[in-house]
Parts: sequence; C-alpha cells; structure tokens
Amino acid sequence: MSATIIPLGTASAMPAHGRHLSATALWRAGRLLLFDCGEGTQYRIKDADLKRSRIDRVFITHLHGDHCFGLPGLLSTLGMLQRTDPLMVVGPEGIQAFGQLPGLHPESLPFELTFLALPAGAGRQVVLDDPAYTVTARPLEHRTLTFGYRFEEKPTPGALDAERARALGVKAPEDFGRLKDGEAVTTPDGTTVTPAQVVGPEQPGAVFAYVTDTRPCPEGVHLATKADLVLHDATFGMTHHARAVETGHSTAREAARLAQRAGARHLLLSHFSARYEDTTVLEQEARTVFSNTTAAEELQRYPLERRAP
Amino acid sequence: MSATIIPLGTASAMPAHGRHLSATALWRAGRLLLFDCGEGTQYRIKDADLKRSRIDRVFITHLHGDHCFGLPGLLSTLGMLQRTDPLMVVGPEGIQAFGQLPGLHPESLPFELTFLALPAGAGRQVVLDDPAYTVTARPLEHRTLTFGYRFEEKPTPGALDAERARALGVKAPEDFGRLKDGEAVTTPDGTTVTPAQVVGPEQPGAVFAYVTDTRPCPEGVHLATKADLVLHDATFGMTHHARAVETGHSTAREAARLAQRAGARHLLLSHFSARYEDTTVLEQEARTVFSNTTAAEELQRYPLERRAP
Repeated sequence: MSATIIPLGTASAMPAHGRHLSATALWRAGRLLLFDCGEGTQYRIKDADLKRSRIDRVFITHLHGDHCFGLPGLLSTLGMLQRTDPLMVVGPEGIQAFGQLPGLHPESLPFELTFLALPAGAGRQVVLDDPAYTVTARPLEHRTLTFGYRFEEKPTPGALDAERARALGVKAPEDFGRLKDGEAVTTPDGTTVTPAQVVGPEQPGAVFAYVTDTRPCPEGVHLATKADLVLHDATFGMTHHARAVETGHSTAREAARLAQRAGARHLLLSHFSARYEDTTVLEQEARTVFSNTTAAEELQRYPLERRAP
Repeated sequence: MSATIIPLGTASAMPAHGRHLSATALWRAGRLLLFDCGEGTQYRIKDADLKRSRIDRVFITHLHGDHCFGLPGLLSTLGMLQRTDPLMVVGPEGIQAFGQLPGLHPESLPFELTFLALPAGAGRQVVLDDPAYTVTARPLEHRTLTFGYRFEEKPTPGALDAERARALGVKAPEDFGRLKDGEAVTTPDGTTVTPAQVVGPEQPGAVFAYVTDTRPCPEGVHLATKADLVLHDATFGMTHHARAVETGHSTAREAARLAQRAGARHLLLSHFSARYEDTTVLEQEARTVFSNTTAAEELQRYPLERRAP
C-alpha cells in the first residue's frame, strides 16, 4: 500500500509568490493525514483533488498562525459536510483554543472533536497507533512549543515461499497460513517446519518525517532517521544564517546536513521565506551536501516509497 | 471620487463551485473598506489586485465562521507587513475573541488593533465618520447577533457658475472662494451676491448597503434606502423559501422586493448556497421583481456611482 505526500502550502509566515500557508497531506489507502493547517487549507485540499471528508487525524506543529489558522474553518466545513467520524487534532498545549472560537460550536458539530494537547516538556510520544502505521511526536527547537512528527508504516510479514514449504512436506492448506502467521507446523511424516525456513524477512514500512519549524536539533535527527522522505524547514539560504538562528528556523543547507546525518533517502525543502521568489538557490545549496534534495512544489505528489531492503 | 465594490467571496457556509467565503471590498481613493472576512480573505485581496496595506477599517456582520475566520490571518499578515496605522475592527459583541487567539499577539503587532463591539440591542450607530463618508451599522435578523452596514459619501458642494458671478459684478478672486464656501459677498458697486445665485445644488454622495446574512427586515430597508448599490443575502431560490426562513436567510426574490421597497438603484445578489452551481436562476427570480439585479461575480469590479440628481 503506497502513500503520497502532497505539500499544500510551502510559504512561511504569509502567502507569497503564489505559495500558500503551511499544510501537507499524507494520502494513503483513501485516508488523509494532515500536517499543519494554515489559513486556506480547506481550499488547498480541494485544489489537490483530495477529499476533506477523508481526514483521519490532524497534526499541528505549533501555534503560530501560519500553521493553524485554517483549523476553525476546516472543522466548520467538516461539520457542514455532516462528518460523523470522530476527529482528533494533535498539537501543542493551547491547541484547544481552536475549538472554542465564536463561530465554531463543538457541541453542535455532528462529530466528536477531541484535542490531544502535548505539554511543554513532552518527549517522544506516539500520537496515532493505527493497525497499519504509527505517528510519533518529538519536540523541536523553535521560538514557541513545537513538535515534529514521524509517520511510520508497520512492517509487513515476509512472503511465504510456498514451493519450498511443499518441498519440505507441508501439505495441509491451513498450515501455509500458520507458517505465514509465525507458527511452526508438523508435516504428515512428522517433520517440524518453522517459519524461518519458508518465510522471507519482514518488510519494513515507509517512513515520512515532518520537521518544521525548527533549528536543526537532535530530536529532528531522530524524527528523520532512515526516513524515506523528510520534509524540513528551509526558510532561509546560507546568507541569512543569522536570521535563521534568530527566528528559530533552518537554512536549506542545515536541513541537508540533518538529512545526511539521519541517513534519510529524500529531502523535501519547504517553509520558504517570502524573500525567495525562486527557490532554486535553496535547492542548490542543499544539494552540495545532500544530493537527493527537492524544493517542495505545492500540489505535486511525492511518492512515499519503502526503502529497498 | 468614485468607488468600486469588489466581491471577494460569494459562497455561503463553505467554499463551493470556485466560490469563496464571504468578503467584499469597497475601494475608494486608494483606501479599502472590508466588509466581512471569511477564511482566505487575505488571499482574495491579492487575487483582486488590491493592497492589504490599504485597509482602513473592517466591518464584520456576525460571528459565524464563514464571515470572520479570515480575521486572525489577515491581522497577522498586516503585522508582518509592518503596518503602523491603527486598525479598527467593527463587529458584534464577541468579535474581540479574534484578537486573542494563540498565534496572534496584539501586543506584538506593530499597529494598534482595536475592536468596536456592537452589543445586542444596539440600534443605528455610526461606526466610521471620515471627512468624505460615513459607515452606519443597523441590526439585522439572523440566527445570531448580526449587523448590516451602509456606506454613504458626504454630499459635495455644488459647482460655482463663475461666468454668472462675473456678470453679477463679482471681481475679487477671493470672493469666488467665499461664494463656494457658502458666504455672500459684496461687489465693488455695492450689490450683494448670495451663493444661491451662483452655486449649483449640493451633490449627494454615493451609497452602498451591505445587507447579509438576514431575513428581509425593516432595518435592511433602512440600510438600502435610495442606495446606488445594495449587496444582499440571496442564499436561496423560491423553492427553498422555507429553508431561508429556517436558517435566517433571504431568497433572491425577497432581496429584490427589499431593493424595490428601498428605492435602490442596483441590486447585487450574494451569499449563494452550495446547491446552486449556476446562480442564473436566482438572478432571474429576482429580476421579475427588480430588473436591475446582478448575481455577484467574484473579483468583478462594480462601480459605485452617484445617483443622477
């Protein structure tokens, strides 16, 4: 089951050069995980030909307006679309305020709205545990309480080598299922066949890391470790390194160093300062360190593919 | 000085068919008055080639999200654009909450942000008194505390007929100015010349009425009286009259009756239900009552012209 990452907004602070405020969709098996929700995200989900009704969970990095001011409108619209599935919004402590704004009445929404508020001092925390994947939060280093997220598919069992199993004497159809489920079986002639003999190695799942807004930091490296795709804050180029430090952001090259250190496979730069009409310079600066870097383009579909074993 | 009305969002409740959430700009002499501010309004102002920096005052009709969820983002962006002019936001009691959202820190904005909160029970009230025009609020009839607004240019003095003044013996250059300012003058031969003899009648200013969301009501008629342009709630067509009553909205034909009763000159229908992909039917229903009706199109520029005397 393959997933796709769709940047919906790659601007920092305010819309500029046709770029929109922060939001990124992860689309997988007809379900949508939403990372950040800047103003206008409900429009951008439609622009991306995704369905707002399929949103499964929302993960907000921090409470600066450009990352969360689209929440009240999105929640209202989900209510008007008669959503009935419960919805959880994960984010830093204070996120609950977005359910209490005049014009949004959680008690009148047709679905249960809950907030998972991550407090200051929170360390690594699993914020979604689905049968097929998990999402983990870790604190980042920004001017305000901020969390990054790591989406990780659970490993899938290895393939059963049915031919080899038959050669070892396995005959009963249910024994093939047992072997695949990790049980040893006994053949009619009394031989024991173990899964290790006939089932290939577990296949690791794909990993996506969403690391913004932040200075490069060890928790960012943890989030991105061996990730197939990392979306990272690259607000500035090298000549504005001091500004990155001052505002709690990263340069494109810092993002590249982090991706390299984390052993990631593909780096998507995002959260571009309005001073860059063309983001090619950021991409080039990052590529000198980490060649598989792309400046994220809005509404492009970036496949989240499992790393080759 | 002529003004222009630019609908930025004509959808009701949620975006649909390429239509956006409620907002309308009045552009006059390089200044922008903003009526309602649904999510995404900061984008729509740019789409309309208007300048966010030129916003003079914001008037919010009511605190349903589709009319005000764009406020926090717009205020943030004005701060990032280094606005220093004070800004007042007018709206119903409760509007102050939009200055207290996490992610928006009024104390860190580079401009003074104030709210003029109109309480329940408020009657007619002048909410902007500029040298060239006024804006007046009146309560409407919706499901929540709602105000409509009337923009009215102040009358300009009539033209001086200089030729006729000279014929009556006026010679001193300063006497022409006095006559125009409403003073009588004495000519060298001792004759008194009065303004009434040489100055034409005062020219009335143009009037725009913004009447949404509401059932047709007497206060709506007052707002629209002899208006040159009325933007009115036309959420539904005739076949959904019961739904209009239930939700506190108007049908297109009800808007037309109100425009007719008010002696208005041009009616713009807006706030269309998502059930109407094509709004022609609403326009047609209204025109049977009030022929000078237009279904508002977003980003069109509708001239606000002074009624011929």
